[in-house]
Amino acid sequence: MRINNKDVILSMDTNNIITSLAAYDLHLQHPPKPGGSYVSVNIRNNIAYIAIQFPIRNDDYLYQGRLGDTITTEAGYVAAAMCAANVLAQVHKYVGFDKVAGLNHADIYYQAADGWDDGPAIANGASDLFVNVLGEKGIHTRAIFGVDKLPRNFSVGITCSFSLL
Amino acid sequence: MRINNKDVILSMDTNNIITSLAAYDLHLQHPPKPGGSYVSVNIRNNIAYIAIQFPIRNDDYLYQGRLGDTITTEAGYVAAAMCAANVLAQVHKYVGFDKVAGLNHADIYYQAADGWDDGPAIANGASDLFVNVLGEKGIHTRAIFGVDKLPRNFSVGITCSFSLL
Amino acid sequence: MRINNKDVILSMDTNNIITSLAAYDLHLQHPPKPGGSYVSVNIRNNIAYIAIQFPIRNDDYLYQGRLGDTITTEAGYVAAAMCAANVLAQVHKYVGFDKVAGLNHADIYYQAADGWDDGPAIANGASDLFVNVLGEKGIHTRAIFGVDKLPRNFSVGITCSFSLL
Repeated sequence: MRINNKDVILSMDTNNIITSLAAYDLHLQHPPKPGGSYVSVNIRNNIAYIAIQFPIRNDDYLYQGRLGDTITTEAGYVAAAMCAANVLAQVHKYVGFDKVAGLNHADIYYQAADGWDDGPAIANGASDLFVNVLGEKGIHTRAIFGVDKLPRNFSVGITCSFSLL
Repeated sequence: MRINNKDVILSMDTNNIITSLAAYDLHLQHPPKPGGSYVSVNIRNNIAYIAIQFPIRNDDYLYQGRLGDTITTEAGYVAAAMCAANVLAQVHKYVGFDKVAGLNHADIYYQAADGWDDGPAIANGASDLFVNVLGEKGIHTRAIFGVDKLPRNFSVGITCSFSLL
Repeated sequence: MRINNKDVILSMDTNNIITSLAAYDLHLQHPPKPGGSYVSVNIRNNIAYIAIQFPIRNDDYLYQGRLGDTITTEAGYVAAAMCAANVLAQVHKYVGFDKVAGLNHADIYYQAADGWDDGPAIANGASDLFVNVLGEKGIHTRAIFGVDKLPRNFSVGITCSFSLL
């Protein structure tokens, strides 16, 4: 299968996912804890809802600032990939990839300087990771928009849900 | 069951909900009407989608302004709880709590002054209410972000959906 | 059936949809292509997720700017209708209206000048189109909010999903 002229892998098991993420220097361990009175993953009927994920790694807050100001587009791409990796870490911990039918949709938010317009480019950091790591099950729709501010001054945040088998 | 180190009640009937909301000085009557060509609650297959709710009470628009400017964080917490109470009033009127499997996910939007960063604290006004009032069925994931502007200058707004039995 | 004091048609077939859109001078052809590593429509279980749609027509980017500044409220209403027509064009191409149980919820984003507060009025451009063209199956909930910026300086964007039969 091909998406946007790239080959898409069709298999997905946890070992493949770990290997694929390692190529990004990203890991499934230590998903961030919720920053309030909510849960990171909520399974209702056949959908797993994932709370907003930020570029947090081992409890460190990374990529804080505004895109086009202190955060470059290239860094934003990595920040979005890190959000996506945290999504997968939550799925790994609370759902299990063997139960996943596929990613549904991702909302990708960013905060940026005036005049900066590379939202699609940084959002691809998450979209590419989902498709490269999950294969056909990572195919998704998305919405992207620049918000006034994200909590803790994060440059990027991602919310999504997965359909379950 | 416990979430974020708090006990979570497991039962949910309409009388309990009314009693719990009364403790907040909130009520299930008079859910706000839609402000456009849409409906407040849309049931499709086994999900009830709830339109964005604002801190409106008996048709009065409350908590208008920007957090960190004319609206304090403490007031924002109450404003978010009032949005959540309106969500429940819509569910009570158009769905019935006996048909609810549980809350899925809440998107919580706020408009705030530059430098204000208490989004998680005010969002807990809604999250706490959902869990305190609905028990296990109120557990949810959430996304929060600061928007440029909400309609009618409301400081907070909430959109969510519920899975049905 | 009536919604907001307007009659709502109850039938929906592709010919009716084409005729209804023609009355808007809108068409089902040429849905915009995705602007990144995602798909325009993603069907998982019994929901079709539609990627964010903008006022794009035959690959031309229209209605770029801020509402209340270079884009009037009247133009914003048309821009939102164009986004909604593109949603329908995606459904026509990738789902088929005969498989649609109904529209679930629409998130409607806009970028506007300081002090402009006609979000509900422009969002009705999309809501009216959905209901006028799809009838009962176009009834939906919605959320609207003003974002800091939309990609490519679009004034309006819409994300939604449909339940399938």
